[in-house]
Amino acid sequence: MDAGWLETSYMARKGVARGKAGATHELTEAKQGKYHYVYGPYAEPVLKIKPGDIVVAETKDAFEGALKSESDQPTKLLHMPFLNPQCGPIAVEGAEKGDVLAVHIRSIKPRGPQPIGTTALIPEFGGLVATTNTALLNEPLPERVKKMEVTEEGIRFNSKITLPYEPFIGTLGVSPEIEAITSLQPDYYGGNMDLPDVAPGAIVYFPVHHKEAYLYLGDCHATQGDGELCGVAVEMASTTTIQVDLIKNWPIAWPRLENERFIMTIGSTRPMEDAARIAYRELVRWLVEDYGWDKYEAYFFLTQAGRVRLGNMVDPKYTLGASIPKRYLA
Amino acid sequence: MDAGWLETSYMARKGVARGKAGATHELTEAKQGKYHYVYGPYAEPVLKIKPGDIVVAETKDAFEGALKSESDQPTKLLHMPFLNPQCGPIAVEGAEKGDVLAVHIRSIKPRGPQPIGTTALIPEFGGLVATTNTALLNEPLPERVKKMEVTEEGIRFNSKITLPYEPFIGTLGVSPEIEAITSLQPDYYGGNMDLPDVAPGAIVYFPVHHKEAYLYLGDCHATQGDGELCGVAVEMASTTTIQVDLIKNWPIAWPRLENERFIMTIGSTRPMEDAARIAYRELVRWLVEDYGWDKYEAYFFLTQAGRVRLGNMVDPKYTLGASIPKRYLA
Amino acid sequence: MDAGWLETSYMARKGVARGKAGATHELTEAKQGKYHYVYGPYAEPVLKIKPGDIVVAETKDAFEGALKSESDQPTKLLHMPFLNPQCGPIAVEGAEKGDVLAVHIRSIKPRGPQPIGTTALIPEFGGLVATTNTALLNEPLPERVKKMEVTEEGIRFNSKITLPYEPFIGTLGVSPEIEAITSLQPDYYGGNMDLPDVAPGAIVYFPVHHKEAYLYLGDCHATQGDGELCGVAVEMASTTTIQVDLIKNWPIAWPRLENERFIMTIGSTRPMEDAARIAYRELVRWLVEDYGWDKYEAYFFLTQAGRVRLGNMVDPKYTLGASIPKRYLA
Amino acid sequence: MDAGWLETSYMARKGVARGKAGATHELTEAKQGKYHYVYGPYAEPVLKIKPGDIVVAETKDAFEGALKSESDQPTKLLHMPFLNPQCGPIAVEGAEKGDVLAVHIRSIKPRGPQPIGTTALIPEFGGLVATTNTALLNEPLPERVKKMEVTEEGIRFNSKITLPYEPFIGTLGVSPEIEAITSLQPDYYGGNMDLPDVAPGAIVYFPVHHKEAYLYLGDCHATQGDGELCGVAVEMASTTTIQVDLIKNWPIAWPRLENERFIMTIGSTRPMEDAARIAYRELVRWLVEDYGWDKYEAYFFLTQAGRVRLGNMVDPKYTLGASIPKRYLA
Repeated sequence: MDAGWLETSYMARKGVARGKAGATHELTEAKQGKYHYVYGPYAEPVLKIKPGDIVVAETKDAFEGALKSESDQPTKLLHMPFLNPQCGPIAVEGAEKGDVLAVHIRSIKPRGPQPIGTTALIPEFGGLVATTNTALLNEPLPERVKKMEVTEEGIRFNSKITLPYEPFIGTLGVSPEIEAITSLQPDYYGGNMDLPDVAPGAIVYFPVHHKEAYLYLGDCHATQGDGELCGVAVEMASTTTIQVDLIKNWPIAWPRLENERFIMTIGSTRPMEDAARIAYRELVRWLVEDYGWDKYEAYFFLTQAGRVRLGNMVDPKYTLGASIPKRYLA
Repeated sequence: MDAGWLETSYMARKGVARGKAGATHELTEAKQGKYHYVYGPYAEPVLKIKPGDIVVAETKDAFEGALKSESDQPTKLLHMPFLNPQCGPIAVEGAEKGDVLAVHIRSIKPRGPQPIGTTALIPEFGGLVATTNTALLNEPLPERVKKMEVTEEGIRFNSKITLPYEPFIGTLGVSPEIEAITSLQPDYYGGNMDLPDVAPGAIVYFPVHHKEAYLYLGDCHATQGDGELCGVAVEMASTTTIQVDLIKNWPIAWPRLENERFIMTIGSTRPMEDAARIAYRELVRWLVEDYGWDKYEAYFFLTQAGRVRLGNMVDPKYTLGASIPKRYLA
Repeated sequence: MDAGWLETSYMARKGVARGKAGATHELTEAKQGKYHYVYGPYAEPVLKIKPGDIVVAETKDAFEGALKSESDQPTKLLHMPFLNPQCGPIAVEGAEKGDVLAVHIRSIKPRGPQPIGTTALIPEFGGLVATTNTALLNEPLPERVKKMEVTEEGIRFNSKITLPYEPFIGTLGVSPEIEAITSLQPDYYGGNMDLPDVAPGAIVYFPVHHKEAYLYLGDCHATQGDGELCGVAVEMASTTTIQVDLIKNWPIAWPRLENERFIMTIGSTRPMEDAARIAYRELVRWLVEDYGWDKYEAYFFLTQAGRVRLGNMVDPKYTLGASIPKRYLA
Repeated sequence: MDAGWLETSYMARKGVARGKAGATHELTEAKQGKYHYVYGPYAEPVLKIKPGDIVVAETKDAFEGALKSESDQPTKLLHMPFLNPQCGPIAVEGAEKGDVLAVHIRSIKPRGPQPIGTTALIPEFGGLVATTNTALLNEPLPERVKKMEVTEEGIRFNSKITLPYEPFIGTLGVSPEIEAITSLQPDYYGGNMDLPDVAPGAIVYFPVHHKEAYLYLGDCHATQGDGELCGVAVEMASTTTIQVDLIKNWPIAWPRLENERFIMTIGSTRPMEDAARIAYRELVRWLVEDYGWDKYEAYFFLTQAGRVRLGNMVDPKYTLGASIPKRYLA
């Protein structure tokens, strides 16, 4: 990571803490106690922090560790809606509706006994099977669990293939104003976006809807392909370190992200083309509002230089990120 | 209404109260106090009833009466997410996860000073405009409010056209287990289905997810076309009378409905074909489980005799009902 | 049929033949010779007719009679793209791009030895299965063929159930200008709409794209549920009688339909909500252009009184019709 | 380009010409004469070639050069369906249904007087506007044309920004068996995929449906962002050089592509999630059939390592490519 670009980030330029790191808070399993399965305002905060503070959180994997061996049966061990456990909520001092919470991801480390990584075939769930939404009469695929050793050196997919360790936070966001929504869903407040760019080095910006923001996080992945095809990435428990800042009065409608190379807007909905429309419309707006572009010139420009990353094609809503390299925005 | 068919209804055959009416409870505006904007388990019940009990509820219109004249501006008077106020939650004694709540709609009467009925063009909302989901660069349509006199004799749409009074409950359902979801959305627990068959005479069945079910209702419409095209039916405050029964151990996944003529299953999601798939798959399952059909024969049969009603094409999820006449099921 | 309404139809008021019947042409199997599998301008007309002329066509069933018994295997007997054989093209004198062809359906009679009716489960085809579009890893359903006796008195679905004979033309339309598109697809020129309202008594209007229109028809159904769920209605060979008229200079974008009770616009595309948008936008335009409505008032009106019929949810494009009763348009 | 990888390509290993270059054919504007607007079997070949032969084609831009200045009005100068003119058809000796045509793209050079490049806002067309499919009541955006100088050194987007020259073929494919489909549409036979990976260095594989394949090409882009957001990339006339080979008996359902780094499958349909499903299912099948993977292990693997490229979100069907790095397939 280059301190250089961080100094020019929105977080550093507009944050209450100017991107400077404050106190560090440990959010261990013990301190978290009960994990949460909804993003909402009805739970008591486990932590109160100030803008700039750092949180070191012990996240659980999406199955709360229930799938321990390849002979385990997901349908016996997993119980909707108690999936995808989340750390939080973390109350951020001073955050109010209309503000933006900036979450700078500093590191994600695998945690726990090997094999740490889990993927699985779960009936009626996934991108290439009939689901509870795409409700069909075909028989489901067989259940299957695959366990993998995960270290910061790589993921042992099988005896021949080791995948690079490219961790990111699968589920991250803030509370809606009055809704409490399953942590399996991504939406305007973040949540289960499963977008690989939400990775160490990046800063993610979320529109605040509830007093003190109520930040949640969980569902770290050791790596993931575009779309999270079968619905289950290399799921792992992690120790994840984030730095949180607050930008006052930045009325954005959907999550945004920046890293050293690009700025990105993130949309989540169905069908997938609507997620793409959301992401790209937000990017047009960003270019117009913060970079002074003419609306139609921005539309032309993204037509020629925009990039799209498919996060998930499996969750209750699909997620895409639309981005543009920073080199064009100088 | 023909008492005849009611005696053969699921409610009468399987309900704890056998479809017999019990005590009547008035749920006036005063008793309701604060109306609710989410379907969830976090509010305190306003009423506790027993299976068979009748509730007479004073519902507000979807705008909580804010649009009083045709010169009103929706964007000045309406504030997300505080739309579509709901009566409830009503706790039903003995209801548990895995049960079904039966709601028999007995009557819906317009309530309040004329003109009672309201429809409106609201920016970024509706079936034939760019929205927050179908996010486009086109300019929104102008705002517009239309007020109409509504009586049980008809709806005065304009000086030439009077529409028949065909009231129904736009938003009706039970609490999710741990989620609290905007009353603007329909889903597996009911909610904002905007399906005209949810009308006096019908019995609607909802899967219970939370102890005591926590029933909500609101958003009555004096009439509505298929799809609720602009997103706003003839909205009105009402006095709505329902009879509530409880069916133990009926594990259904989505709302179901019956009236004198047909049985119907209801699906809500995006894109619209997935809502149709949900509804029809549930109907196949119903024929197989309760009427002894072979799965493929049921699939063939619905191909030749199934009927589809489009509820809404405007809410966060689209709603369709799939039905089959009872005469084929004897 | 009431001659009364026909006299007030668009066909009678605007047609070159004023809705008056002209000469009758027999289009027997022998005269047709080779049937066609595309809607396009590259085939030679089998018939040249004048506006007002009547055509009595011998249509084949969608499988060209290949499925003769319930032990037949569709995958062995059906060969893409040689499905859904069509009569035509019929050249209509004087028709030019920008005109409209009016097709008044006078009768549809079952034809051939019993059992005339066929439905089937065909792998990777249908509304509740994975398909070549909704491409999934689930195993396909088993193949199955069901044969049914069909007379004008009814369809013997099984030993208990006889369905009413409610015939309609599944595939009907005109040639695109330069495209030749599989007869399995519906689109702006008509084609495989599978919409049950395309029935005796109705007049269907198609935008002409190619000189002499080049009318095709086939794929008659003895009955069909909304959506044609498994993809195969009660398919039958038929003797179908239509009267064809020509309306000069009526620039419509999609097929339209009228019968005694309503006017309807028809949209076909994916996802299904876009088909609904097309149909309803065309209906707004029709109200504005021919009935003098204000655009937004029409939008409000369809919100309260529009009706939607789902044609198919199985073809390469989905078809919906949006309609409004004629009683409101006086 | 590294001759090394080419020698290991499917084209070199399985092609009739073993990837060896044969005779070179010039397909100049004069030789082409009339360009084509459909992909179909009804046109006479302009060229007959043998497997291995090279074709140097003069493609026109998507507007056939009609938009010459920024004051031109697209609606006055463009006439549906006469858009996106194509070179071809090119008959390839020996090609039959069930074979695969391999098209190795060797170079794409801008052609004609500056400014060569054109993009435009065309009413009812594009990814962030209401269209003829997503049919809405909002007013269209204003028409606009933007011209850009294009050389192999770059594209002068405006006075500040020069985009890299990253050319590719927007529309490329073979004839359907009996259909003739607008060159604006992508589908199972290729066509208007607008996928930036169809670039110099790549080999694209198309399933042959018609005797001699009938290859078409056109619509070259100097560069394009993911999704081709406004519907119009940097369109240009070009001199494009391809080498064509033939692989006998390779029954693939959708186009495939390989370059030095990855193998890719390409799906085109609506909604976008179905295009993603097609592409990924084809990639699972490729891994199973040619690389010996277990089906579920392939599904797991693509979940962790698959990559998705969005081609277009604007054409009659959306296009996505799913890929996997070759380094995992050794």
